[in-house]
Amino acid sequence: MRSVSILGIGSTPFGLHHDQSIEQLAEQAAIEAIFDSGIERERIGVLYFGNFVSGVLNGQEILAGLVADNLGLPNIPCTKVEGACASGGIAFRHACLAIATGQCDVALVIGAERMSHKASNEVTAALNCAMNNATDGRVGLTFPGVFGLIWSAYAERTGATREDISAVAVKNKWNGLKNPLAQMKKSITAEDILNSPLICDPLRLYDCCPISDGASALVLTTSEIAKSTGHGQLIDVLASVQTRGSAHLSTQGDPCSFGATVEAARQAYATANISSNDLDFVELHDCFSIAEVIDSEDLGLIKRGHGARWAAEGNSAVSGMMPINTSGGLLAKGHPVGATGVSQIYEAVKQLRGTHANQVPNAEIGMTHNLGGTGVVCTVNILARRS
Amino acid sequence: MRSVSILGIGSTPFGLHHDQSIEQLAEQAAIEAIFDSGIERERIGVLYFGNFVSGVLNGQEILAGLVADNLGLPNIPCTKVEGACASGGIAFRHACLAIATGQCDVALVIGAERMSHKASNEVTAALNCAMNNATDGRVGLTFPGVFGLIWSAYAERTGATREDISAVAVKNKWNGLKNPLAQMKKSITAEDILNSPLICDPLRLYDCCPISDGASALVLTTSEIAKSTGHGQLIDVLASVQTRGSAHLSTQGDPCSFGATVEAARQAYATANISSNDLDFVELHDCFSIAEVIDSEDLGLIKRGHGARWAAEGNSAVSGMMPINTSGGLLAKGHPVGATGVSQIYEAVKQLRGTHANQVPNAEIGMTHNLGGTGVVCTVNILARRS
Repeated sequence: MRSVSILGIGSTPFGLHHDQSIEQLAEQAAIEAIFDSGIERERIGVLYFGNFVSGVLNGQEILAGLVADNLGLPNIPCTKVEGACASGGIAFRHACLAIATGQCDVALVIGAERMSHKASNEVTAALNCAMNNATDGRVGLTFPGVFGLIWSAYAERTGATREDISAVAVKNKWNGLKNPLAQMKKSITAEDILNSPLICDPLRLYDCCPISDGASALVLTTSEIAKSTGHGQLIDVLASVQTRGSAHLSTQGDPCSFGATVEAARQAYATANISSNDLDFVELHDCFSIAEVIDSEDLGLIKRGHGARWAAEGNSAVSGMMPINTSGGLLAKGHPVGATGVSQIYEAVKQLRGTHANQVPNAEIGMTHNLGGTGVVCTVNILARRS
Repeated sequence: MRSVSILGIGSTPFGLHHDQSIEQLAEQAAIEAIFDSGIERERIGVLYFGNFVSGVLNGQEILAGLVADNLGLPNIPCTKVEGACASGGIAFRHACLAIATGQCDVALVIGAERMSHKASNEVTAALNCAMNNATDGRVGLTFPGVFGLIWSAYAERTGATREDISAVAVKNKWNGLKNPLAQMKKSITAEDILNSPLICDPLRLYDCCPISDGASALVLTTSEIAKSTGHGQLIDVLASVQTRGSAHLSTQGDPCSFGATVEAARQAYATANISSNDLDFVELHDCFSIAEVIDSEDLGLIKRGHGARWAAEGNSAVSGMMPINTSGGLLAKGHPVGATGVSQIYEAVKQLRGTHANQVPNAEIGMTHNLGGTGVVCTVNILARRS
């Protein structure tokens, strides 16, 4: 297996883009990533496109081939991959595999979603395509419902308070203030959260990520080719893992843990031959404030049951011992579903290049974590600045 | 790269399955394929799932992880891939890549679609997700419209008559009569076609494939492992190719040819180191009768401009010099979109095992061809009975 490096990154701002089609958003991110890589587009040998529900919300599929055609790429294999909110992470992993196994030398990854133009009931119905509708969906659950249940179970088990869990949202909204691509440009307090509308008890509006449009893109190549380009700061992929978890809540086992995350993290640490202590920062899947708490425990960043209190004490702030979601995460940067897994890597590369708006001093190794559905699919990546 | 073999096949009947969910159809096909392979499901290391518009028509995505969970597969990477009508072919190619590059030793491929429960205007809108809606869709085109235009251009250029082109439909409906899985169990004449309702001039009803529900599945492994199982007749994958073509008609160049097919066939012949003369049969993408004519020329089976006349002379019948769509093809077996590319391989394996209902005597090498959208994506495979 050949070593893989990330040579180019691009991303649209996340937010409301009613004046652009999903393919236009994707093309904007891709052009930026190709330009950033310094590689001629003629050298791109494969395209993986992460998208969840463009058919439902935009009436447009075949996005991989369509966008490749509009970009003037060669007649290469172009594939859309779907795994709900982890679609972007799956696209990245497949591009890594294509490079690592010698299928081609340069790969383009795009993640995109366009959702905000639809009425909120239509968006909720579309998001529920990520649920097992023969079991969980049938009893009336939506994703805020699922994470509301998880919050209640976690709070009862650990004694975590609303303020502990909401500290995650306060931190991520704060981080988002400095991110030029973030959708939510608002500083909030614990009191603001408490006063925001109740969505699904105990989740309130500011505990939830917004509905977003946007796209992110990456250009990958072999570490050898990357080195030969003379491109400034090179970023290597130490591990890229994809796992499966339970597809419905009734077989999930522990409601306060996603098995797919635990397993993906285990495999990623083993592949990269590091431990969580070696990480300088993490971008993880904070679709709701409670999700970041669960994820940080599942990824082994903090002892089980201590995640909320640990966050409330500031340990995951930019200046903390383990900065989490310096981008603002899904809660503040936004969550255009298919783009998210790619966007996390965009943000991680900025940290490792030393050019992030919320820079972690001397960041050398970072992790990204992307979760789909009610935990049915997970991708975890470990990236490192070449020393 | 390791050599890949097909060890197990399964398929539901194609037709109307209003009493089953898409995941139930997929599971039925998968269980049959796993049983047929004789391999324990615990050994499956990856799942690729081909599906086009389950989100739009069934409100259900994450099918790969969902079906893996229901089947009790290990916590392996499970990915849905989408490329319109070529989704199944893309799934097969990715499973081949996983085996060939050593990612795992056993792979499961599933293709599925469930469409017929929806009103025909909803199905037409869903199918148009495979079109470039910023260009072709916007001028009012649907897929019958596209192939009606192609028919007119081809007839004008070559002088092919309605009877020549419709001979394809007569043949495929005839082949379908013997296929126990085929949706259309009706023998038709050229006159029946002429008397069937006009869909989009000059296409009439029987020139079009039906709206179908169904699923097909395959189990792949390395040729070495396949040999060690003692499984009867082994089928090797000599080539599995995926290409991109133009994403809209205005840049297609020749309206009577799909560039993605031409290039995929070229690559497949080169990889397998054979010519079209070495093929004993072909399963190709006959979404409309005219499509089979275009495909047979694009695949190099017959000289350009001669495809319709050649078919009318019986050359592509089961007993002809180059049997095409002995399964009945999309026109008679049916076209549950995401399943089709996998179903073609199911049928090809039956031919190569010598167990097909329309058996070609001593079939040793076969090709499958799966086309997506207005030619934006194509997969071509060459399979061979191990001598």
